[in-house]
Amino acid sequence: MSLTPHLAVVGGGQLARMMQVPAVALGLRIRLLAEGPDVSAAQVVPDHLVGDHTDLDDLRAVCAGSPVVTFDHEHVPPEHLRALEAEGHAPRPGPDALLYAQDKGEMRVRLSVLGLPCPLFLLLPGDVEEALEELADFGYPAVLKTTRGGYDGKGVWVVRSADDAAEVLATAFAEGREILAEELVDFRRELSAQVARTPSGDVVAYPVVQSTQVDGICKEVVAPAPDLDPALAQEATDVAVRVAEQLGVTGMLAVELFETADGRVLVNELAMRPHNTGHWSIDGAATSQFENHLRAVLDLPLGPTTPHHAWTVMVNVLGGAVQDLEAQEAVVLSAVPHAKVHLYGKGVKPGRKVGHVTVTGDHLDTVLADARRAGALLQDG
Amino acid sequence: MSLTPHLAVVGGGQLARMMQVPAVALGLRIRLLAEGPDVSAAQVVPDHLVGDHTDLDDLRAVCAGSPVVTFDHEHVPPEHLRALEAEGHAPRPGPDALLYAQDKGEMRVRLSVLGLPCPLFLLLPGDVEEALEELADFGYPAVLKTTRGGYDGKGVWVVRSADDAAEVLATAFAEGREILAEELVDFRRELSAQVARTPSGDVVAYPVVQSTQVDGICKEVVAPAPDLDPALAQEATDVAVRVAEQLGVTGMLAVELFETADGRVLVNELAMRPHNTGHWSIDGAATSQFENHLRAVLDLPLGPTTPHHAWTVMVNVLGGAVQDLEAQEAVVLSAVPHAKVHLYGKGVKPGRKVGHVTVTGDHLDTVLADARRAGALLQDG
Repeated sequence: MSLTPHLAVVGGGQLARMMQVPAVALGLRIRLLAEGPDVSAAQVVPDHLVGDHTDLDDLRAVCAGSPVVTFDHEHVPPEHLRALEAEGHAPRPGPDALLYAQDKGEMRVRLSVLGLPCPLFLLLPGDVEEALEELADFGYPAVLKTTRGGYDGKGVWVVRSADDAAEVLATAFAEGREILAEELVDFRRELSAQVARTPSGDVVAYPVVQSTQVDGICKEVVAPAPDLDPALAQEATDVAVRVAEQLGVTGMLAVELFETADGRVLVNELAMRPHNTGHWSIDGAATSQFENHLRAVLDLPLGPTTPHHAWTVMVNVLGGAVQDLEAQEAVVLSAVPHAKVHLYGKGVKPGRKVGHVTVTGDHLDTVLADARRAGALLQDG
Repeated sequence: MSLTPHLAVVGGGQLARMMQVPAVALGLRIRLLAEGPDVSAAQVVPDHLVGDHTDLDDLRAVCAGSPVVTFDHEHVPPEHLRALEAEGHAPRPGPDALLYAQDKGEMRVRLSVLGLPCPLFLLLPGDVEEALEELADFGYPAVLKTTRGGYDGKGVWVVRSADDAAEVLATAFAEGREILAEELVDFRRELSAQVARTPSGDVVAYPVVQSTQVDGICKEVVAPAPDLDPALAQEATDVAVRVAEQLGVTGMLAVELFETADGRVLVNELAMRPHNTGHWSIDGAATSQFENHLRAVLDLPLGPTTPHHAWTVMVNVLGGAVQDLEAQEAVVLSAVPHAKVHLYGKGVKPGRKVGHVTVTGDHLDTVLADARRAGALLQDG
């Protein structure tokens, strides 16, 4: 494949795979840096190199000829992004923004300075005894989080006593990790507010959705969040727009939020890329998060986020009893012919995200039942 | 790319390219036989071979490991399809059905036997003098068509006198072509009825659409056809379903029809593959024609064809003044941010189909105006 790429994408997971779909429609050629020859996105992006996102030469190779580079994940070292910038490429999001998705401690401090609603938090000193002293004042229960590298519930621990905390801290500090403590929020449910933002400053917001996590992994998303107070929905959207603008995010931004028992929203996590809580938009909205991510990072005008129907439900499919997912589609589509099935081309391992299903419609109860049924059939038969 | 394919596709044009989009979502791996390394679909299907669809060994190579083979076009020789069948592959559609999309003479005879509404027609003898004698009885004006190999208005001539006809016939017969004569239908407009059919016999029908041709090339499609008498819409759908069932079509079938000035529908052409008059369904319907084509040929349950909105308009983009189509997207999306732009990765040549745009909405006048505006900006700036 010798044609010049329009865009470099670092990382070959399902997010990059799903970026390829609107890229095909828009005639945009992606050059991909993949972790291996058969990873999810490498299966569908012909122009891919196999390499390491922490290796600057591999990054240079994938960026060659592309003015813009974007990401499947947040793990490219900031110094490499600055080197690419110095060599004339535009990482989107850029390193100054991405820092706040890479480091939860930096994120908490910055969002607090901006006056955005966060749980109470404390950056712990890197010594177990000192950290325990500060935690004693902070109070238990507390949530301890590694500031860098956590995902899908990994790197997060709920501690209810100094003994609990001591164990977590000893291991974490021995691994050289920095630990953030947060209050254990009494939340009614989790929400997600997504926006896309271009380098020119255009912003569009998606409807605020409800996400349900099981063992720290997103299991189900309902769009829009049912029975959400319109003022609270607006506040969640405003928070996401402010984060995008104040942090200079380009591309998609997801702000995961708690809706507290006492009717507030608090920022939980940030992701500066397409996000699991936005997969519903592929089949449910006028412009998918993947298309708007491409449009945003290439500074094209953004598309409308209007849902096609009153309700869209997305259910994640994790590695379960079904081994041949593609063959199982016959069963799923026979039971729920209107389900939209998405498979990521990944091997089935317990708990691994291997696909998702989406159902849209006008009645939440049937949409939810159909989506859950399709998801269960695909996951466990 | 060493993973086993689920499906072989012969031909690397935009139809195969657009099949790849639902194939990515469904996790279905296509192995493609492409005319060249950089043709439209080869740019987006990693597992492709370059070869000739009239060469049985090339067809065998692309089919290796695939139970099912389908097509971007109708030009694979029937004897090769039979050879592939004998070797254990399932061409879908199969050669017995495909004959009627390959040969307009066979199609007319078969549809007439089935009692399906066709223009008056006459298969001409292969001698100019004899053919002119029969045409004198048939009457002028008449439409002469080469029975095989015509497309996009090529191989079709309107003749108004014996002199006109003599010229066309002399050239055609010298090239070894068989010629079909048809009445020149006094039509109000052209319609298209599309259905998908599985080998198991499941059938779904798309809404009947209105298509506008310019110089024999589809320029614009409105879905559903405005102000179409519901009884006539039902008749058009019934014709398409009967054609699919009686001819044993598998995959997508498009039946292009004339709506006559006196309120009938007559079959004009058949296409046994996704068709230009169905591109609206990518952005406009619950299941696109490309997804239902894949589902049909793989004998998966079919998806609903319900439109997302009251109106969908698709405008073809032909090679025009704009040379860098991808760069022009900034202009198009700035003017019409809700337009869905599709580019085929093809070089711009005058009159060549290089992309299309789709707009959906609730008011036909604005949808039509926006789609035409987006299409014009993409084609001619």
